[in-house]
Parts: sequence; structure tokens; C-alpha cells
Amino acid sequence: MNESLVLTDDIAAVSKIPQFKANGVACDVRGKSDGRLDLCVVHSERPCAGAGVFTLNDVQAAPVVLTRQLLSTGNAMHGIVCNSGNANACTGDQGLRDAEKMSFETSSKAKAPQGSFLVCSTGRIGEPMPIGRIVSGIDNCVHTLSHLPDAAERASQSILTSDTRPKGCLVSWESEGHSLSLGGFAKGAGMIEPNMATMLAFLFTDVKMKQGLLQEVLSASVRKSFNRISIDGDMSTNDTVLLLANGASEQEISEKTPKALEDFHDAVDRACLDLAEKIVSDGERITKVVRLEIEGAPDDASAEKVARSVGNSLLVKTSWYGSDPNWGRLVHAAGYARVGVQMDSIDLFYEDAPALLKGVPQVENRERWKEVVSAERFTIRINLNLGIGCCTMLSTDLTEGYVDFNKSE
Amino acid sequence: MNESLVLTDDIAAVSKIPQFKANGVACDVRGKSDGRLDLCVVHSERPCAGAGVFTLNDVQAAPVVLTRQLLSTGNAMHGIVCNSGNANACTGDQGLRDAEKMSFETSSKAKAPQGSFLVCSTGRIGEPMPIGRIVSGIDNCVHTLSHLPDAAERASQSILTSDTRPKGCLVSWESEGHSLSLGGFAKGAGMIEPNMATMLAFLFTDVKMKQGLLQEVLSASVRKSFNRISIDGDMSTNDTVLLLANGASEQEISEKTPKALEDFHDAVDRACLDLAEKIVSDGERITKVVRLEIEGAPDDASAEKVARSVGNSLLVKTSWYGSDPNWGRLVHAAGYARVGVQMDSIDLFYEDAPALLKGVPQVENRERWKEVVSAERFTIRINLNLGIGCCTMLSTDLTEGYVDFNKSE
Repeated sequence: MNESLVLTDDIAAVSKIPQFKANGVACDVRGKSDGRLDLCVVHSERPCAGAGVFTLNDVQAAPVVLTRQLLSTGNAMHGIVCNSGNANACTGDQGLRDAEKMSFETSSKAKAPQGSFLVCSTGRIGEPMPIGRIVSGIDNCVHTLSHLPDAAERASQSILTSDTRPKGCLVSWESEGHSLSLGGFAKGAGMIEPNMATMLAFLFTDVKMKQGLLQEVLSASVRKSFNRISIDGDMSTNDTVLLLANGASEQEISEKTPKALEDFHDAVDRACLDLAEKIVSDGERITKVVRLEIEGAPDDASAEKVARSVGNSLLVKTSWYGSDPNWGRLVHAAGYARVGVQMDSIDLFYEDAPALLKGVPQVENRERWKEVVSAERFTIRINLNLGIGCCTMLSTDLTEGYVDFNKSE
Repeated sequence: MNESLVLTDDIAAVSKIPQFKANGVACDVRGKSDGRLDLCVVHSERPCAGAGVFTLNDVQAAPVVLTRQLLSTGNAMHGIVCNSGNANACTGDQGLRDAEKMSFETSSKAKAPQGSFLVCSTGRIGEPMPIGRIVSGIDNCVHTLSHLPDAAERASQSILTSDTRPKGCLVSWESEGHSLSLGGFAKGAGMIEPNMATMLAFLFTDVKMKQGLLQEVLSASVRKSFNRISIDGDMSTNDTVLLLANGASEQEISEKTPKALEDFHDAVDRACLDLAEKIVSDGERITKVVRLEIEGAPDDASAEKVARSVGNSLLVKTSWYGSDPNWGRLVHAAGYARVGVQMDSIDLFYEDAPALLKGVPQVENRERWKEVVSAERFTIRINLNLGIGCCTMLSTDLTEGYVDFNKSE
């Protein structure tokens, strides 16, 4: 770990990354004339290497299809354009034309090469895009791009849907004599999992790196962060994580600079983990965030299955909501992951307090379990004592508020 | 299909099957001294062939372990004993001894061979069994076994937990000159899926059949019924379906009597489907039952994956609760089953009204979708147009009441 690395909570982080400009504007995507910020552009005049990680859902929204295509060309990128209020998903050929129009319009207005703006959308699916208003919004946004924090804040606000607050972070570090930075913003995904609401995260950095390597770093970081709060198979049609590197620092990072590469990887890890945690903490109507640590599984993949079984169980989630230390439901859920769990091998802890040791209830700790599970944040550790596989996952409770919130759109 | 086959809603069905006796008693398993019926015995003096289908959860309750063992001996069975209020799960060696004690005590009191009573339990897990009170209950129950409908009704009431009503059915049919019958009772499983509450179903018949064949018939019927309302992998530690055939009709059914075998298979299918539907309809705090028909999948297994993705999605379930015909959420969920769904191939119908044809929204039907999804029962049909695989599944909505009900025990 690089000792110089500093992580800051900053929704205007993009304004701190050299030579990126941003802004967020209101163009009434939702057709409610409420002045809500709903479109942003981030732009670098310097050409960027771009990397992306996308939903694995069979049904992919038009902007996902387009952005994948654009990245696959290997061309330099100059920025992103994103709207909220309409996901441009399940919108057929017209949807694809609308996504292309968004990229085209942004490139033109920003005087950047065609195909150098990546596109994201989030919101209701199956509705045609109000492309006229969006194009006006793009024109307005590109005209008002700025290095100022206010503009970056507006960008991070414009992508929100059911989020209650914008989410951003900045990572700064020293590497081989250079001051480097990485930062960006994100939006959340409802109750996260097994919810299908869209998760978006946009990261920007001034390091100089080839696209292939940038993609490797981003993919590895996403596996350990965003994919620990959302099942791949449950991803929405629009989930996207993007990383643009504009090289403004002039420090080139490659396999030939292993220390600098490691530092950069740390920085991306830290930023992804931070934004992932912010997304979970802002889940729809949640009251608790629970860290699940699964250990002693036959292998890491089995540990992940157990973590997902437990973390997604409605009965487990509702018991957390009710501050009920119901270890039986946790064991039930671990058992239906079907990785060979043996009841008489399981150790289960609420923070430091054992609830089960080798499957035997430690009932003298009952008061302490209750105390732990009554907190807003706590850790449950399950050791299956079968092997060395492990997985950590963030989960949340399930509330009446969630049901009420989602019963109609 | 046998035209003579008649299905009747009957919670006292077991009293109509020749030479089975039953009763249900109160023995205060829950320790609340509330007089609630919580233990039943069903007994046949004639030896029975027995078959069972069990949870696939890695963690299996003591009665499941024991009942599997007893059936695996191939010995004749004489009945079942079942308690509610305590699942005898995650109870270690003592739990297994308690389950054995229940079987032993029932066999002794009923003057049947040792090991001829199968054992089931349902209720809270991880709590030691109040075995003294249960043994007293068994003694009391065996003493008062009866052919009368009242006693059979008490049996069907005694196994309930969060169910709001007892569930039973009787199937009668003529086969090669014999009047045959099959009937029994069941208890439900909370919100069913992905809930882990226990599902129990007990069926009894007067046909004469070898154990191996009986098991084949039951396994096949369960796959098409109970397993269409509950994911195997999500089953509770205690889920059990049992079928006892005492041969009182003297009609022997085997591969050598294909017509009679087919009739019997129909009867088991009908009974299992009926009880499965009753379980779904009595899910915890549900307001709607939705029949999902998935067609045109690459194969049946893919169709089932899609049905489960859609039927288990919290966002889909909450939208049903809100009477919101949100086909976008259905398509989302179908997409994350990851069986190769192609958006521009999907047809989706709310009852008779198309919502999507080849992926194109049929918005002129919007009012009709809304009408359909506002009903208490409706069918949604999704044709993926990829192949000939199909699957029908029953699902329910998700309500604030469910969350409230389950937030503590």
C-alpha cells in the first residue's frame, strides 16, 4: 500500500483531476418541468484511454451497446455524456439511434472527434427518449463546461435517480516523483441486490496508460468492489463503470513501471470500494448496512455463493430490519447455497460474539447478539471450517419502506 | 386423463382413505400454554409402502435425516408423526435423538414395528425440542386416533405455522373396476420463495404399490408442482413431501397395469398441484397470485431459470403489489436469467393483451395491462421465441405486510 495515498469524500472530485471539465444541467428528461438536473457531460481536451465494465444482463440498453462498441475501436476518447430519467432500454432501433445522437451531438459541440464520447442513461425503461430535449441539454451543457467544483457537483447530481445524495470521491497519491489523482462520481442501485436498478460509476485520472492495461486494472477492481454489492447475473440493463485516463500528469504507467502500476491499482481499488460502499449505504429505504465475512469455504467461489445466499435472503434481511439476531435464518440461507455446508462445522459471530461454535449455539451471548444486530452497521462472520475460501460482501436490510417505494414507479 | 377422477377440497381427506386413522392434539410445543393444536399422528394398521421427497438444503433438520434413513431401509411403514412450533433443526445430536424418540414412541404406542413411523417437524430452528411434552402429546394422540373427519381436521390444523388456514384435498377415481382414493394435507411456506419457511405435504392412498415405483411417481409429481413454487436450492431445512400407500383397496398397481398406473399418476399430480396452489395462495401477507407461463425458451431448464428470475424479483413482486403493469421489470429479470434472451424476440402478454410483440411495446393496450395486473389472480405469458422450452410457475406479490411479519419471530 502506498503510504502517500489519500482518499477524500468529494462529490466535485472530477474538478480536481487536471484537464477534465464537467457540468450538469436540467433538460427535463422526465417531462415534469421541475428543473431537476438530469444530464451531464465530462470532457477532456486531451485524448483519453478508456475502459469500461458493463452489465452481464442479456438485455442491454442502447447506450451500453454503443459504449461497448466505441471502446472496442481502441480509439482515444474525450469524455462521457449521461442522462437520468430515462434508461433508453428496450427501445429498439430508435433507442440505438438516440444513443448515437447523444454521442454525436456531444462530440460535435465539444469539437472532439466523432465517436469519442461514451454514453450512459439511467431511469425508466421501455420509454422513448425525449431526444430533442436531451440534445438541447447537451448543447447547453457543453457550452457551460467548467473546471469549477460547482459544475462538477452539478454533474454528480444530474445522474441520480432514487439516490438520496450524490456520491463522489477523490484519491491522490505520489508515485515516482509525480502527484497523481483519480476521482469521480456514482449513482446507486435501489436496494442493490437482487434489485435491478441501475448502478453507474465514472472515474477520471491524469495518469497516462494504454487502454488494455487500464481495462485490466478496472476489471480487477470492479470484481472486488461493485461486484461484491451486486450479483453479475442480476445486473440491470444499464449498469456501467467507466474509467478515462487523460495522461495530463505525463506520468506513463505500464508493466515496465511495476511500482507505479501497483500504486495506481491501489488507487482504483480504493475509489471503487469507496463508491460501492456509498451506493450500498444509500440503498432505497434501508436502515442497516451489514458486512458479511464468509471464511473457511471450500474455495472463494463457494464463499461467494454463501455470501450471496445469506445477503439476499428476504428472511435474513427482514430479521436484520427487526434487530432480531436470528442465526437460524443465516444458517438456512448458507445451506441453500449448496456448497457442502456442514452444520456441525459452522462458527458464526455477531461482531466479536460467537453465536455458533462448531454448530453449537452459544446462548449465553444472546444479549450481545441482540445489541450487535440493533446497530446501523455491523459485521457477521461465518466460518464454514471446510477450506480456505473467503468472501466479503456488503448487504442491507429489507424494510416496508422499500416495498412501498417500489410498488409503482 | 381419467374422466372418473374427482378432486375435492377437503381438509379431512385422510378420513376418507380406507384404513387410515388420524388425530391432532395440543401438547404446547411452543411453551405458550395456548392450547394450540401442534402435533398429529396418521396411522395405518396395514403396512404401507412409503415415498418421500426432501429439501436439498445442505443443512437438513434431524427429522429429515431420520425419515430419509427410515425410507431407505425399504421396510413397510405404518404412519407419520409431525409437530409444529419447533423445527428440530440445527439441534445437533440431541435433535437426532429427539426425532428418533418421536418415531420410537409413536411406533410403540401404536403397536407397530419400530422404525415404521416417519417424522416431520416445522417451526423455529435452533431451539431444543421440548421432548417431554411432545412424548406426552404422542401418547395422547395415538390413544385418540380415529377415522372421523373431526380428527382428520385436527391433524391438518396441527401442522400449521404462519398459515392462515388448513389445506387439504381428496382425489377419487375408478380404475379397472376399483374405487380408489388419495388424499392428504399440507402446510405452507411463508411467502414461498425465496423464503425458507417449511413446506410439508402428506398424502395417503389405498392403492397397493411397490416402494420404488411409488417413489418414482411422487418424485415426478413433485417436480411439476411443489418444485414449481419453490426453488430447490432455496428449500428450508425441513421441507418434506410424503406419500404412504396402504393397499386397502387390494388393487395392485405396477408397470404391468399401465392404465391403472397412469390413472394413479394423474391422481398424484392433481393432488400435488392442488396443494401447491393452496400453499401459494396462503403465502404470508400476499395479495396476489400470478401464474407465469414461459414459452419459447431454448429448453425447459432455461424456461425454468427465466420463470424463477421473474417470479423471484423483488422489483417485479412489488410492482404486482402496486398493480403496476411494469413490463420493463419483467424483461429486466428475464434478461438476468442469462439464457440468451433477445429483446427483439420477446412477446409478453398480460392475460390476452400483448404488452410486447417482438420486443415492441403495444402501448395501445396499456389500460388493459393495468386492469389485468389489478386483479387478485392473473397470468403473464412470456414467449422468448428462441426454442420450444417452457415452464409454468406460480408466484406472488411482495407486500409491506410480509416485511412487517418477518422482521422478528
